[in-house]
Amino acid sequence: MKTRFFSCLKTLINTGGQSAASNSTKLLLICAISGTGGVAAYADSNSSAAPKKKQRVLVLGTGWAATSFLKDLDISTYDVQVVSPRNYFAFTPLLPSVTCGTVEARSVVEPVRNIVKKRNGEIKFWEAECLKIDHVNRKVFCRSNIDEDLPGDNSFSLNFDYLVIAVGAEVNTFNTQGVKEHCHFLKEVEDAQSIRRAVIDRFEKAVLPELTEEERKMILHFVIVGGGPTGIEFAAELHDFVHEDLVKIYPSVKDLVSITVIQSGDHILNTFDERISTFAEKKFKRDGIEVLTGHRVMGVTDRKLHMKAKATGEEISIPHGMIVWSTGVGTRPVIKEFMEQIGQGNRRVLAIDEWCRVRGLENIYAIGDCSTLCQKKIMEDITDIFREADTDNSGTLSMEEFEDVIEDVIIQYPQIELYLKSKMLNVSDLLKSMYNGKEEVDIDKFKLALSVVDEQTKSLPATAQVAAQQGAYLSNCFNRMEQCKKNPEGPRKFQSGGGRHEFRPFRYRHLGQFAPLGGEQAAAELPGDWVSMGRSTQWLWYSIYASKQVSWRTRLLVISDWCKRYIFGRDSSRI
Amino acid sequence: MKTRFFSCLKTLINTGGQSAASNSTKLLLICAISGTGGVAAYADSNSSAAPKKKQRVLVLGTGWAATSFLKDLDISTYDVQVVSPRNYFAFTPLLPSVTCGTVEARSVVEPVRNIVKKRNGEIKFWEAECLKIDHVNRKVFCRSNIDEDLPGDNSFSLNFDYLVIAVGAEVNTFNTQGVKEHCHFLKEVEDAQSIRRAVIDRFEKAVLPELTEEERKMILHFVIVGGGPTGIEFAAELHDFVHEDLVKIYPSVKDLVSITVIQSGDHILNTFDERISTFAEKKFKRDGIEVLTGHRVMGVTDRKLHMKAKATGEEISIPHGMIVWSTGVGTRPVIKEFMEQIGQGNRRVLAIDEWCRVRGLENIYAIGDCSTLCQKKIMEDITDIFREADTDNSGTLSMEEFEDVIEDVIIQYPQIELYLKSKMLNVSDLLKSMYNGKEEVDIDKFKLALSVVDEQTKSLPATAQVAAQQGAYLSNCFNRMEQCKKNPEGPRKFQSGGGRHEFRPFRYRHLGQFAPLGGEQAAAELPGDWVSMGRSTQWLWYSIYASKQVSWRTRLLVISDWCKRYIFGRDSSRI
Repeated sequence: MKTRFFSCLKTLINTGGQSAASNSTKLLLICAISGTGGVAAYADSNSSAAPKKKQRVLVLGTGWAATSFLKDLDISTYDVQVVSPRNYFAFTPLLPSVTCGTVEARSVVEPVRNIVKKRNGEIKFWEAECLKIDHVNRKVFCRSNIDEDLPGDNSFSLNFDYLVIAVGAEVNTFNTQGVKEHCHFLKEVEDAQSIRRAVIDRFEKAVLPELTEEERKMILHFVIVGGGPTGIEFAAELHDFVHEDLVKIYPSVKDLVSITVIQSGDHILNTFDERISTFAEKKFKRDGIEVLTGHRVMGVTDRKLHMKAKATGEEISIPHGMIVWSTGVGTRPVIKEFMEQIGQGNRRVLAIDEWCRVRGLENIYAIGDCSTLCQKKIMEDITDIFREADTDNSGTLSMEEFEDVIEDVIIQYPQIELYLKSKMLNVSDLLKSMYNGKEEVDIDKFKLALSVVDEQTKSLPATAQVAAQQGAYLSNCFNRMEQCKKNPEGPRKFQSGGGRHEFRPFRYRHLGQFAPLGGEQAAAELPGDWVSMGRSTQWLWYSIYASKQVSWRTRLLVISDWCKRYIFGRDSSRI
Repeated sequence: MKTRFFSCLKTLINTGGQSAASNSTKLLLICAISGTGGVAAYADSNSSAAPKKKQRVLVLGTGWAATSFLKDLDISTYDVQVVSPRNYFAFTPLLPSVTCGTVEARSVVEPVRNIVKKRNGEIKFWEAECLKIDHVNRKVFCRSNIDEDLPGDNSFSLNFDYLVIAVGAEVNTFNTQGVKEHCHFLKEVEDAQSIRRAVIDRFEKAVLPELTEEERKMILHFVIVGGGPTGIEFAAELHDFVHEDLVKIYPSVKDLVSITVIQSGDHILNTFDERISTFAEKKFKRDGIEVLTGHRVMGVTDRKLHMKAKATGEEISIPHGMIVWSTGVGTRPVIKEFMEQIGQGNRRVLAIDEWCRVRGLENIYAIGDCSTLCQKKIMEDITDIFREADTDNSGTLSMEEFEDVIEDVIIQYPQIELYLKSKMLNVSDLLKSMYNGKEEVDIDKFKLALSVVDEQTKSLPATAQVAAQQGAYLSNCFNRMEQCKKNPEGPRKFQSGGGRHEFRPFRYRHLGQFAPLGGEQAAAELPGDWVSMGRSTQWLWYSIYASKQVSWRTRLLVISDWCKRYIFGRDSSRI
């Protein structure tokens, strides 16, 4: 949170410098340091024109991206409408904790209206699902899912000037047979609640009379498909729930419980550092959680799970009592339909540019899991860059000419920085190697020097961190829209027409990631390639997750839930 | 709690006296004063016989009666089995608070296994519904409602030596058309949760675009049918929720909300003192809650509620957005079927005797809302009493003879005490008026003196208080079963065979009742015919309800929920 606040502050100070230079605007900077981040409000005192009609901003969604966008948006300058089937924001990284009652469902949610009501002006929120986006007529069609018996039509349409799509993703079953019918997912708060009930149900069922031991074992076999952070954290939570709480109240079946994690890759937590994967695998082995790596699930029935060992091709069927499916993200129908409309039908998620705009469209933005930032390759634009840099049209670049554009190039093509970092170089090293003692370089030499850079292009992961940073970035752009139209602050445009981009492109800053592994142990990748594992990391996790809460209410609730668990254990009532 | 503890202590001390007199048993008394009441354990050190097979006690239900029975039962001497579709005990008096999020659902429930696991020995709990009681073969047939997909049969049967029926009651719709389809009830925790969601839904729906004002008004018209404590408390909670929390986040519809209470009697809260009814009606009028007394609901559709004014016969239809139906208690199917089996088919609830035994059956007990204590009329037994009292067979009773039986008579016929209390008399006054200076009375005089007494017979209300006292009474009997078989401690048997009853009959002690009326005001009837109303009563309510919690966990949770509400208000997330 702090980091975001400081980066925000930095941007503001930069902007402040430009404003002072242009001498036409005054900057009013209000910084409120609070748990929920910094709030920055601008007022352009020179724009004394008659009150013009506010532009309509329509936001689809109330997840990380949308909430982060709304939280900092200056709603006094826009007419803001929000449509989402959920009237609350959920702190999704705590969902695995909700599945076992370590944290209560209500402690991780905050009504959207609460998040925005303290702000200047008013947003309109509608609890409904967006069914269709009509980008030509700037209209969306929505349908509320509330009780059909109530009077009034549930369908309505809304017009917009700007559309921010932040509907998130749905579970990806990879079309595996039986998954939708027989598996639990873990994307929504309701999913976590139903998993909790289902776990208790399995224990209640297993202790019923007139069952064979084999049936009891089968009922108490919990399978997790997917070895990513969510699946692993759920497995760890479940293990703790069973061994810290349930065995005490269901002592007759405590030796029949088993937990299995199935992962198609070679290691669990494979987006983490290798040391963390190894640590997690060892800990799970000690805990008696079976980890089956290199297995692909082929199908699921009510009683069995069929899978194939990738190495040997051997097909195996195992009985199960419950499966939690936690693999990858899939596309929501409304996004699929929209992608077909705009010629992105062959993609998996919406392609956006570096300014979070849906590629090829004006005024339509997409952030969070429903979008993916398609980083432009430098080699595609290399001729344009060269031409733009070659101010004297000599056909070659002098070192001065190169130095003049390199900053703008680096801003637009972050892969350069990643490449330099990976080689432990800096820009002057790049210059040196390119010029190699000469005064000028031609286009071939220029291409050659940068040709390796594009390999470093990385797509961003579908995480809360990316979504939140995109939302904050976009609200910052919206808040300074008018100002930046007058005084563009982005890098030089190398193609079409020249000039500058209005804004600096979005740049993701990875702040690290956590993997709680149960038994008060966690693993973490921290900024600066640090890796931390063990009990102290769990305490770091507690403090960071508490500080990241969206409101003081949820912060207090989450902390009191943790204390409650320490004192009384987890509740096993089936509600 | 304290009162119960002391009365328990008193009984123990009495018993102790008897044991000492009989000189064959030693009494070990362990008293642990805790929030959950006193625990008393006995050990008869002389019973050194070979370990005989434990008697099987089967308990149906986990409500007030069953939990109160289980909590104090000495499970080391019985083989205890419990069957209930809910694996938790719910503190039902707080359900109205759960409907609006003043208290969380999980804060008012405690797993049954937790309640009994701290005790010596083990109970077996099965999450299933009892479908049929076969009293001849001492067997019940059960069916678990857990996920049908899981392996193993969901049906099973259980044998018992003693059966304690405590399944409670279901909602009574009086066969009113449309109630089951279109009304919410408020008997279970799930009901309270679904009401909470429905209230939020109404507000989300009412703010959607493209609705007429009339439609919005209709959606926000909340109707409560039934002016008893539950209905009234819900109306008050809803009013507070709307006016303290929801109007702030749905400001555009705040003037369209209306709440109506429909009561068939002439006053709401008509089981309370008249001053309380009047106070409640005045407060509701001030708050803008409409109270329609003397109206009978004839039918309900998805949009309208039809009713009839009892006085004028006029039929009225009103539009509604949501109805909560809270009138009386009805019989569960398993009880209905059982009553037909045992010749009680024409009754509404199971008839039990003063020892909580189902009338006419051995070893089958019924407590709580599924039963009603049928107090024997003294006039039915008057000849037997007279004969038993007339030890010299003179055909008349001397004062000594009368004094010799009067205590046993009073124990068995509590209406005598009620009668004396209503006339502000005591037993010697009764004696005086009966003998009126003479030495002996004949049977006619005896009958005449007691003939007015039976009018005072009262049936017990279907409340948590009665159920809890019955449960505690019955566990006390079970704990001393063997001992009391040897040394009966009950009153003299006047009919068949003579001797003494094993136990003293159950006697209900009314400890008062509360009616929270919203806005931090409550009304209460306290012991000794005290009536208390206003803000201080609400604080009394808080402290008594906190102290009555079944565990320290729920006590802490409920108190922290109250604090949370003060600080942050109620949560309006739709989960």
